[in-house]
This record gives sequence, structure tokens and C-alpha cells, in this order.
Amino acid sequence: MSTPCDSTLVALLHGPDQTGLVARVAGWIFERGGNILHADQHRDMQQGIFFQRVEWVPAADSTHGRANEFREFAAQLGMAVQVDSTTHRPKVAVFVSKLDHCFHDLVLRWKSGEYACDLVAVVSNHTDLAEAARGYGLAFHHIPVTAATKAEAEARQVELLRKEGVELVILARYMQVLSGDFLKNFGRPVINIHHSFLPAFAGGRPYHQAHERGVKLIGATAHYATAVLDDGPIIQQDVARVTHRHDVNDLVRKGRDLEKMVLAQAVRWHLESRVLVYGNKTVVFD
Amino acid sequence: MSTPCDSTLVALLHGPDQTGLVARVAGWIFERGGNILHADQHRDMQQGIFFQRVEWVPAADSTHGRANEFREFAAQLGMAVQVDSTTHRPKVAVFVSKLDHCFHDLVLRWKSGEYACDLVAVVSNHTDLAEAARGYGLAFHHIPVTAATKAEAEARQVELLRKEGVELVILARYMQVLSGDFLKNFGRPVINIHHSFLPAFAGGRPYHQAHERGVKLIGATAHYATAVLDDGPIIQQDVARVTHRHDVNDLVRKGRDLEKMVLAQAVRWHLESRVLVYGNKTVVFD
Amino acid sequence: MSTPCDSTLVALLHGPDQTGLVARVAGWIFERGGNILHADQHRDMQQGIFFQRVEWVPAADSTHGRANEFREFAAQLGMAVQVDSTTHRPKVAVFVSKLDHCFHDLVLRWKSGEYACDLVAVVSNHTDLAEAARGYGLAFHHIPVTAATKAEAEARQVELLRKEGVELVILARYMQVLSGDFLKNFGRPVINIHHSFLPAFAGGRPYHQAHERGVKLIGATAHYATAVLDDGPIIQQDVARVTHRHDVNDLVRKGRDLEKMVLAQAVRWHLESRVLVYGNKTVVFD
Amino acid sequence: MSTPCDSTLVALLHGPDQTGLVARVAGWIFERGGNILHADQHRDMQQGIFFQRVEWVPAADSTHGRANEFREFAAQLGMAVQVDSTTHRPKVAVFVSKLDHCFHDLVLRWKSGEYACDLVAVVSNHTDLAEAARGYGLAFHHIPVTAATKAEAEARQVELLRKEGVELVILARYMQVLSGDFLKNFGRPVINIHHSFLPAFAGGRPYHQAHERGVKLIGATAHYATAVLDDGPIIQQDVARVTHRHDVNDLVRKGRDLEKMVLAQAVRWHLESRVLVYGNKTVVFD
Repeated sequence: MSTPCDSTLVALLHGPDQTGLVARVAGWIFERGGNILHADQHRDMQQGIFFQRVEWVPAADSTHGRANEFREFAAQLGMAVQVDSTTHRPKVAVFVSKLDHCFHDLVLRWKSGEYACDLVAVVSNHTDLAEAARGYGLAFHHIPVTAATKAEAEARQVELLRKEGVELVILARYMQVLSGDFLKNFGRPVINIHHSFLPAFAGGRPYHQAHERGVKLIGATAHYATAVLDDGPIIQQDVARVTHRHDVNDLVRKGRDLEKMVLAQAVRWHLESRVLVYGNKTVVFD
Repeated sequence: MSTPCDSTLVALLHGPDQTGLVARVAGWIFERGGNILHADQHRDMQQGIFFQRVEWVPAADSTHGRANEFREFAAQLGMAVQVDSTTHRPKVAVFVSKLDHCFHDLVLRWKSGEYACDLVAVVSNHTDLAEAARGYGLAFHHIPVTAATKAEAEARQVELLRKEGVELVILARYMQVLSGDFLKNFGRPVINIHHSFLPAFAGGRPYHQAHERGVKLIGATAHYATAVLDDGPIIQQDVARVTHRHDVNDLVRKGRDLEKMVLAQAVRWHLESRVLVYGNKTVVFD
Repeated sequence: MSTPCDSTLVALLHGPDQTGLVARVAGWIFERGGNILHADQHRDMQQGIFFQRVEWVPAADSTHGRANEFREFAAQLGMAVQVDSTTHRPKVAVFVSKLDHCFHDLVLRWKSGEYACDLVAVVSNHTDLAEAARGYGLAFHHIPVTAATKAEAEARQVELLRKEGVELVILARYMQVLSGDFLKNFGRPVINIHHSFLPAFAGGRPYHQAHERGVKLIGATAHYATAVLDDGPIIQQDVARVTHRHDVNDLVRKGRDLEKMVLAQAVRWHLESRVLVYGNKTVVFD
Repeated sequence: MSTPCDSTLVALLHGPDQTGLVARVAGWIFERGGNILHADQHRDMQQGIFFQRVEWVPAADSTHGRANEFREFAAQLGMAVQVDSTTHRPKVAVFVSKLDHCFHDLVLRWKSGEYACDLVAVVSNHTDLAEAARGYGLAFHHIPVTAATKAEAEARQVELLRKEGVELVILARYMQVLSGDFLKNFGRPVINIHHSFLPAFAGGRPYHQAHERGVKLIGATAHYATAVLDDGPIIQQDVARVTHRHDVNDLVRKGRDLEKMVLAQAVRWHLESRVLVYGNKTVVFD
């Protein structure tokens, strides 16, 4: 899955299935001198929907223009489309509270070159991670949130995100629920990590719930945040085995590793334009 | 985990924790000339409960007497106890409907010597598996169940189980819910396989529910049946990865393998006296 | 990944990479009135090789002719190609010795409709499974093999396979090594299940080797047989966790489940034309 | 598996099996007023060896004396024994070269409280991680190693480890092979992480070897270092699935996560006195 250094375009398409779509998309690119690197299609036979991720090197330096042309072409086919250039590095903000394991994990992966993005802001309702963020050379913004000030705090958050041109928010164990207003006003994707295998144990204290129920596996779920708590489109999930020997603290410790891995993978897929959302589900072109 | 051929005793103990329990149990066995093969203990620190599985070779041929003596000893310690002899082969009945994958899997494992039990009856509300059961040399009992005849049918089932001396019922994708009356009247353990990762997707058509929700893992759960549907103590669970490429039929196919493996393991642990039930949870001494 | 009932064609292509391959293949199919159901491509950037699996519904009833036309087209592109029709049910022979777990597993999957093939022969160097095979209504052929008679026995096997028109041989824990001569004379794929995570523990008694080395995971590997023992292209592998509590017999028991699952998956992928072999490796279009 | 705050003793015992060992050990502790928290035994039936991990709270403040007494007791039983107090925090050194993922992971776990030890030194043959180590407040020691200076460099390393009282060395992707002399002179355990599923792909560039062979799973193995390269007792192993889509760089990236997880778990088990070494194998009392 290595990508070449040159600028390439990635399109995520979906819409009503029709004969010849693969040929038409490939033909369109070929006729304009482009070279397809990867093309992956899927058909939902039951619903009659066509999904495609296609990545190609356009001819010459016309990357920007080609992206717009392709959007028009897709619209003519009746397809919803998103086109990204691999040379564009999206601006990302990480929201944290007090727990630091996902935060360190994301930042270290970013520093090691795993993520083609710019981390432009760390936002928190607490100051616990201020020093750690600055130690990494990251801008830290303390925006306290109380029940009384939530609407105002969210307005400040959205203002900050807009000012910084943020295109993706990652909730790295941020312990506040974002309101529907925040999501609407921000208008960009927000990825959350929930510390259970959704839809089991939605809501608060999922490790306590899991211990109480006596499950033999605990899980973590990365999903896009929506206005309905823990109900957004699932991007990635994983589980780990537990036994009666593990008390709630052990579940929390084992869960930290799950959360890091699952969130890290979801973020990487999102940044590589591999996640297509439709309805309340995702198609991940891995 | 191989067991020797000689008769050994296995005790599953639990009760309020107190100092010296490990020493007392080991001392009691040692003083009567017994030799401990395996001893595994667990303490639930939060609830102050002590759990133990101990397996030993008693002196000479006094197996039966020793089991009764040990029960008295445990009662004096304030412990609930179950003592089994490894030479006792419990009688088992398998309940099936139309799906045959768990049925074949269990029977073939039994024939290959994985299970130290006697399969004395196959019970079904349909006749689809009659021929397969008889092909294996097993007694097949057709007891139809309708909404109107359910109570009567269950009474016939219980009568059959008692007559045959059945000590364990395995629901191998039996598509009827057993009533609380059945469970009370039978009075012995019933192991069920549910085709989801409980508590997610309890109830009917769990693969459809899972596909609808867009989960990235599907699961199966083996549990003891209780009067509350899909809520009994969990013995074993496992999951398999699915993607958008898998439609409901694929989930069903992948699920069959999960169901077989999870049920087979739960049954083996039960037959080896490795599963201790307390409250709505299990301790599995694997 | 369900396939529709109509006849479709599946092509597995590979050859030197060149600009526009995706478009040319899709265009060729589109121009002849075909509809692409699935198309999956891969580029090995380091070696400059293009791989593709494409499945389509050809126009009208010209399936056979289209397959031949496509072969010519692929040849002109410099591609090696295999084209199968999904309505063709390949004839398959299963080779067994004394162990029956993979045998029962394969036959039961076949009977339940998981495999679109015809099981036309069970071949064994022992008679242990003769009755089981006949119980399933399968033709059983006893061809004893000794060091002295091996060449002659293999000649009889090849003769039988040719007479029956066998297109795939599955070695379901067949305990004889097939010679290079057999493989050359048969000239069709042979899938073997090796009871270790290759390349670790190649050769005999791998569970004993694994126990001796003290590994924490045991594995199984399904691969195409070649003249070099346990060295052919790997199709599928999986592992299971073991601890010091498991003796060699436990490893053997756990291994049986691994072997069944891994072999079953490899056979399914092969029968669905999802496995492309190049050099000593496979590309599995899952 | 949580441990209480009070001082407890942990003994790891092994030796020739004999009747009554469990009772004698438990009795010895009970008679001296101790309370057993956990006791886990294992018998290797084939070799006739008894293994035990027992953790107990001794009476009053006699922890140190009790440990010595227990050592004498075990010697009388003909058992090899190691006794540790949970209040003792062993001194640990981490050896690194240029790769930093295992290094960051270990240090962050240590800082979060997962490891009850003192990280007293970071030793490297390069200076790449000097700044990162100092950023964490850790002492960094640059000891260059060339073929010509290896013996001398190792002597300096051993001198440093002795001066600091180091009881465990962790090789966190340290890219030098330690000589038998180093291991003998240091005389304490050394844990290494090898980036493959040993015994497959021992030696250099295992991900290249794995890619070349076309395996479907890659692995990582944490083991105690011995004078024979990649052949020491295995503590933990794990694997991750790879496909033809993953080139060597992807294997390296996925491998980093495996290496972190496997090494972290092996180190935790070692520090909790859960790993008993005998011959070239381990018993892990998890």
C-alpha cells in the first residue's frame, strides 16, 4: 500500500449502480493521460449501490484542474464523490481530557511519518496534558467545559477550528459529548474512540459494564461522531480476551492498548481517503 | 491438560474468602493420601470471594466415599462445592432444529474422543436431522412445538430427559426458546449458542442486525440458558472480522464456523468440570 | 461476496505493468456488452507486475466464446491469464490417510453448498476411511503405497485422476509426500495442509517440534504442493495460542481445528478463482 | 491480577515432582501466619517436573527473613526457587539503537505506572535517541560499537550495568548481537524482541524474508537472550495478518505495533515474577 511521491488523486465515489461504471471511470482517466494505480469497487447487491475508490496519477501538472473535472464527471454519472490530492496535508486537531495514552500514540505515529497531515492544535477541557503537548512542540488550547458553559465552550472550539482551517477532529479519549450543534457548525468529520465493542456497552463506564456482564472479550470501536451518542458509522473495531482473573483495572489497562490500535488505524484510513460513509455505515477500502 | 486414565476427583469450590483456604484444602487431601494433580485458585478482591478448582487422585479405591467426605469438608468451610469423578461419563442430549453445522461438529468431536460423555438423545422440533442422527447411531426424538402446544411439548421433553438420566442439554442452534418452567423442571445445565457477541444483538436475526449496524466484527456466544433470553452466564465468546464485502449470507456462513468453535469449546470445558457459575457470571479454569 | 446465479466469467491476469491496463480491460468488456461485477487490481511496485481479478456477466449466451476471446485479448496485452466460468463445477479428488477431521469438514461443507464443485473420488493409502466415504455416497479408492511401490502407486493415482477428469486434488492430511513426477504428470493444482506455521517446523511431527521449542502459538498452512516439501506457494495460514499447560496431545487437538479452518478457506478461495500464483507466492483476491 | 499495596512475596519454584508438594508449600506458609493470595501449579507429566508460582502476604514485617527461610525450605524439597518481594523495584536498563517505537512505548508505560521498576539507564550505540531519553529525564549513555571495539564496548556496558545495579536489560530493537561473554559477565536476564515469529525467519531482515516467502501472517517474538542468536526461551509471541497488498515497508510498519505489544507484555510478566525459565522454555503464570 505504499504510495509514490508524485501527486496522485484519490476519488471516493458512490451512487446507484449501472452498467459500465468501471469502464467509464477508467476510460475517463485513461483518455486524459492518467494512469490508475489502484481501483477497488464494491457493489451492494441488495441496495443496488456502487462504491469505488480509484487512485491515479494525472497527466502533467494539472492535478487541481483534474480534480474539479472529475467531480463534474461523477456528478453526470449521478455519483456522490470526494476527490483528494495526496499532496494535500489536511490540518488536524486532537481533543483530549486527562487520559494520555491515545494522545501520545497519535503524536508519536505522526512524528514517525505514519500520518500525512499537520497537527495544528491540541484542545482540552483540562490542563493535564498541556506540558506534554508543548513538549512535542504542539499548540495547546485550554477550553474548560461545564454544564453551564457548554454551548459557549463549543462555540469557542468551533471558532478555533475554523481559524486554524482544521479539516478533521480526533477525539482521543475526550470525555465530553459533542453536541449536534457543534457537529453541524464544524461541518467536518470527527473521529471518536469508544472503549467497548459497539453496540454493546454504549454510554458511560463501559469497562465496568463489561465486567459486570462477565464477557470474555472486551473491545474498542472507532467511529465518526454523530448527534446520537455512540451511534455513528463504525470505522474499525477490535477485541482482546479477558478472563475472571482480570478485574476492572486490568480491563482498563488492556483496553488502553486496544483503544490506541483501533483509533490509530481508523485515523490512518481516514487520512488515506479509504473510508467512504453512506447511511450510517462505512466502506473501508483497505 | 491431558488427564491420566486413573480415576481422579475434581472439585469446584467457591465461598467467602478466609485465611488459609489453600492450605486447608491441600492439607485435607494430603492427609488422606491423595495426590493433587492440578489446583487453580482465584480471589475476587472486590467481592471477597474465593474460587478454586482442584483435581486429585484419592488413595486406593475410595473415590466415591472421598467425594462425599470432601463435600462435607467444604460445607464446614462455608463453601459451595461440586465434586465430579473423571470416570463418570455424564449423559447428554442435543437439541436441534433444521441447521446441522453445530450438530455434526459436536457429534464428530464426540466420536473422535474429545468429549468424555454419552450422547443418549437427539431431540428436535423438526425431522430434518432424523436421518443424520440415525446415521451416527443416535436415538432421534421428534417432539413438534407450536405456540399452542409448547407447554405440553416441553413436558414431554423433560420426561424424556429424566427417563434417559440426562445431565446436560446442548442447544445446537435449536430455534425455540426454552421456558423458565422447562429449565426449572429439568433442573440441570443447558448450554446454548447465540450467534452474536452478547450483549450486542440479543434476540432474533442477529446477523441481520449486525449487517444493518455496519459492525466490523461478528461474534458468537456460548452461555448457560436462563429464564431471561440471551442473558445467562457467558462461558465462551469469539469474533471474526467482516468487511463491507460480506453480505448477510456471508455473515451467516462465517458465523457457522464461529458457532461451531465456540460451542465446542464451551461444551468441553463444561464436561471437564472447568466452569464454575456464580451470580450471572462464570469462572473458567482453563 | 455472494455470487449471482447467472453465468459469469472470472479472469485472473498478471504480467508486466503498463499504463492504462485497467481502462483497457474494462473497456474491452464494456464494448462487448458485458457488465463488470467485481474488479480488483494490485500492482507490485518493486517488480513492476500488474495483477487483476475481474468478474463479469457477458452479454447473452456467449459465455464460452467470450472466455476464449478474452484469452486472446490478454495474450495481446502480454498477460498470463486464466478464465473460468462460474457455471463450471470442477471435479475434485480428496486424498486421505487415517486422520478424518479435515475429510469430514470438507465433505460437510461441500454437502451444505459452500463449494461449487463435484467430489468425484476419495483416494487413500489406507482403508480406515472407506466406510465413512461410502456413508457420504462418495467413491473410495484404496491405493496402498510402500517405499517399494510408490512410483507404481502414483501412476495408478494419476491414471484414476485423469479418467475421472479431476481438476483439483486436496490433500486432507494425506501422510505421503507426492513426488515431482506425480505433480508433473497430473499437471493440475494440488492443495496441501501442513500442520505448522510455515516456514517454521517444516517436515515431520511439527507439533512435537513446536512443543520442544516452546512456542506460544501453533499454526497451520495451506499451500499448493510443489516438488520441494512444504515449500510451495502459501494460500492461507492461521495460528492459535498455546501455553505450557498444553502437552503435545493438546497441540494436536487444537491443531485439528486450525487445520480444518485453514484448509477449508484455501479450498473455497481456489474454487472461487481468487488465488493467483506467481513465482512461489500467491495473490489472494479476497 | 491487581496486587495489593502491602508487601507480598512471590516464589517461582520448580523441580522433580513428588506427592504432596502443593500441601507442603501451602502448609509451610500457613503455619508461619502467611496468607496465600495466588497459587498456580503446573505439572509436566512427560518429564515429571513440578512448577509453581505462589504469592502470599507474610505475617507482620518479616518479609525479608521469610524470603530467606522459604529459600531454605524449597532447597530441602529439592526445588530450584526464586523469591521476590513486590516492594522491591528492580533497576532496569534499556538498550536502543536508532529505532524509537519500542523505546517510547516502554517509557510511556513505565511513566503511566504499568511497570514496578526503575529505569536507570538508556544505553545506545548511536546518539539518535539521546535527546528523547533526556526529554523523559532518563540518563543516556552513548557507547559506540564497531567490529573492532565490540569486546571493549561490551566491557564498558557491563561495568555501567554493575555500577548502576541493573537487574534486567531490555533490548528495545538494539541492533547489535550481545556476545556470550557479555551475557555471562552481566549474569542477569536480558529480554530481546525479534521481529518475526521465531523459529521462522531468525537472523537479519526478517520482514524481507517474510515478504520473499509470501507468508500471510507476520510475527514478533520476545525472548530471553542467550549465546545462540534468536534461540533463547520464548516469553511471548504474536502475529498480524498481511496480504499481497502489503509491501516490505507495510510489513515494517505493521511489525512496529506487534513489536511494541509483544515486548511490553513480556517485560510486564517478567517484572511481575510470572516467567519461570527451565531448559530452553518458559512457563508463564499469566
